[in-house]
Amino acid sequence: MKLAIDSSQSSGSIAISDQGRLLYSAFFDIRITHSETLMPTLDSAMKLCGFTPEDIEEISVCLGPGSFTGLRIGLATAKGIAFARGIDVLGYNSLELAAVPCLITGKRILTLIDAKMKELYAAAFDEKLNCIVSPRVISPTDILDWDINSSILTGSAVPQVRELLEDKGIMAEYAPDFMLVPKAELLFSLPAYLKPRVYSGLSLADLEPLYIRKSTAQIRAKRSVVQPGSKA
Amino acid sequence: MKLAIDSSQSSGSIAISDQGRLLYSAFFDIRITHSETLMPTLDSAMKLCGFTPEDIEEISVCLGPGSFTGLRIGLATAKGIAFARGIDVLGYNSLELAAVPCLITGKRILTLIDAKMKELYAAAFDEKLNCIVSPRVISPTDILDWDINSSILTGSAVPQVRELLEDKGIMAEYAPDFMLVPKAELLFSLPAYLKPRVYSGLSLADLEPLYIRKSTAQIRAKRSVVQPGSKA
Repeated sequence: MKLAIDSSQSSGSIAISDQGRLLYSAFFDIRITHSETLMPTLDSAMKLCGFTPEDIEEISVCLGPGSFTGLRIGLATAKGIAFARGIDVLGYNSLELAAVPCLITGKRILTLIDAKMKELYAAAFDEKLNCIVSPRVISPTDILDWDINSSILTGSAVPQVRELLEDKGIMAEYAPDFMLVPKAELLFSLPAYLKPRVYSGLSLADLEPLYIRKSTAQIRAKRSVVQPGSKA
Repeated sequence: MKLAIDSSQSSGSIAISDQGRLLYSAFFDIRITHSETLMPTLDSAMKLCGFTPEDIEEISVCLGPGSFTGLRIGLATAKGIAFARGIDVLGYNSLELAAVPCLITGKRILTLIDAKMKELYAAAFDEKLNCIVSPRVISPTDILDWDINSSILTGSAVPQVRELLEDKGIMAEYAPDFMLVPKAELLFSLPAYLKPRVYSGLSLADLEPLYIRKSTAQIRAKRSVVQPGSKA
């Protein structure tokens, strides 16, 4: 059986498939952290499906961009299981993942994920999930310079971007609310569109989150190094 | 908080929302029956979210058509909680539910659900979920007489219908595999498109599954009544 984990957002999700069939999926957007929800949810899901850790053949994960702490918890979990079991981890980008439900429209897809700190993670894809605009960090108002004609907008940041565009009187097409935050089970569909990053054995050491930007902690650490030096 | 239950298929799903936000959802397609999965899954979901039965304000359910036993288990669960708590049950049709993810295409939607016994439950909807062809039981080959141009086909019976149409060289557009079996969380989105059947208090007695056709047991019972009589 195969496992999928997405802890790249403040919400999280897991899924179990066997022989190409989805057996179980769970999504949780609750105030406790992934460190408290991920393993208990995985454990009860495995038991409900009648599986033990020995049955896991492959793990698909979302590499980010997204919640720094969430990503570290999800990737550490995947790494630990894969190393112990000697199996592959397939890694995907969260902006690609969020675009998948919109492929049905045949339109260009603009994915916008809330990056907190008044910023967004953004990328654009064509109707076959080929990347047109590579993943990047933008400020919400940057969207005013993007060509959003004949595109559909999706991702967790759609509500704030929609408010901004409507304030400016700009029309756009949006995915419905229930599609904005993708579920881990969609990771099983991604190989039909693109090649994952594959990690196994020693290369599991290279399995790292796609942060795109530096964390607040890193920025603060750098400032505290630079400032005393510039004063000296 | 609000609860959603779909046990109309051989798979099942539940969801919990609070103040318009999805907090939890789970989907399970395992070999044990809804009678063994539904209550334990509901119970652990409520605990994970920190809710007690007193917090449930409303229950949305899928009325069918679908699995007769599954529907009875799901509706009995909803009825029991709603009667004890004095709250409303909102009932929806499973063919409407399965159409929801395809509304994003703006196309006519043909929903086809496996009814077993070499039959399908079928209905067609326009791009605003208005019913064009009312829910009915058909045989798979009946689809050859339907106008499927500029429609998108979805529902659990798509794989068998697709095989049939491709054998005849008929082109059609299909929802991707991951959209074919809808999840209970989509029940929360349905009021934006149509009015549910609402049951509460004594009218909960009227909350019955939408079977559309008679069960095998009913057909056999009728035969066993008729046959001895005709022989006499």
